[in-house]
Amino acid sequence: MVKVMATGTFDLLHMGHIYFLKEAKKHGDTLCVVVATDTTVRNLKHEPVNPEQIRLDLISELTIVDEAYLGYEDDMYKIVEEIRPDIIAIGYDQIHNEEIIKNELKKRNLSAKIVRLSEYKCGSDLDGTRRIIQKIISAYEFQKKMEQIEKK
Amino acid sequence: MVKVMATGTFDLLHMGHIYFLKEAKKHGDTLCVVVATDTTVRNLKHEPVNPEQIRLDLISELTIVDEAYLGYEDDMYKIVEEIRPDIIAIGYDQIHNEEIIKNELKKRNLSAKIVRLSEYKCGSDLDGTRRIIQKIISAYEFQKKMEQIEKK
Repeated sequence: MVKVMATGTFDLLHMGHIYFLKEAKKHGDTLCVVVATDTTVRNLKHEPVNPEQIRLDLISELTIVDEAYLGYEDDMYKIVEEIRPDIIAIGYDQIHNEEIIKNELKKRNLSAKIVRLSEYKCGSDLDGTRRIIQKIISAYEFQKKMEQIEKK
Repeated sequence: MVKVMATGTFDLLHMGHIYFLKEAKKHGDTLCVVVATDTTVRNLKHEPVNPEQIRLDLISELTIVDEAYLGYEDDMYKIVEEIRPDIIAIGYDQIHNEEIIKNELKKRNLSAKIVRLSEYKCGSDLDGTRRIIQKIISAYEFQKKMEQIEKK
């Protein structure tokens, strides 16, 4: 049984996430997903829309996901030590230095192999959390503009 | 095998949707989900954020869902005739007149039982598509205000 681990924010679930998880699972039999905590998301990119518990609960509802966990804040390798995956799958756009990860895993006697996944190209332009947010904001701005025009 | 049918927009998937689907499935063995088309959503409430194909694809990824279909636009009973469910589960907030549905089913020789589901009370305040959109807009307005203050 080959255990694959994949990590992410998974805010506003979209088909880009599904593609990422399916690509990850192709490398093994069991897919363990680590959901980043709100603090981690804030530090790395921005305030999440959905809090960590909701993001974890939703990810757990997917057929493709066998196990789901919240990550740790202080030490990102702590969850790797607990899950002990055979493969760590990294998304094409996830900013991780593979060499640094490999060295750290070696130091901790963890034998996981790092796999960089390919880009998701064939989907809709809504397959991204930022793009979904942008569509909502554009619709809101358009509505506000229409209301201003109608008031005049 | 008792077949349950549940219908909805399922835009910006959230735990309220999951609760609805789980409550529906409690009434049978197989859960068939009908996703409303973009035209239907526009007529009934508002412009959906995610187009119908994405909403359908995401719903199909849930463990709880056995079969997923797009609804028809002209005749909402056409999909009922195809699925032939034993139970039609209606959400607590779905505006459907149960008597009208019952009569229409009878006319078409469909024997499905209508079940009205209970309200989802224990979740986060983000368990609603409108609330998720509102949170995104509030964050955007706050950011804009901060930028204006910083410019002064």
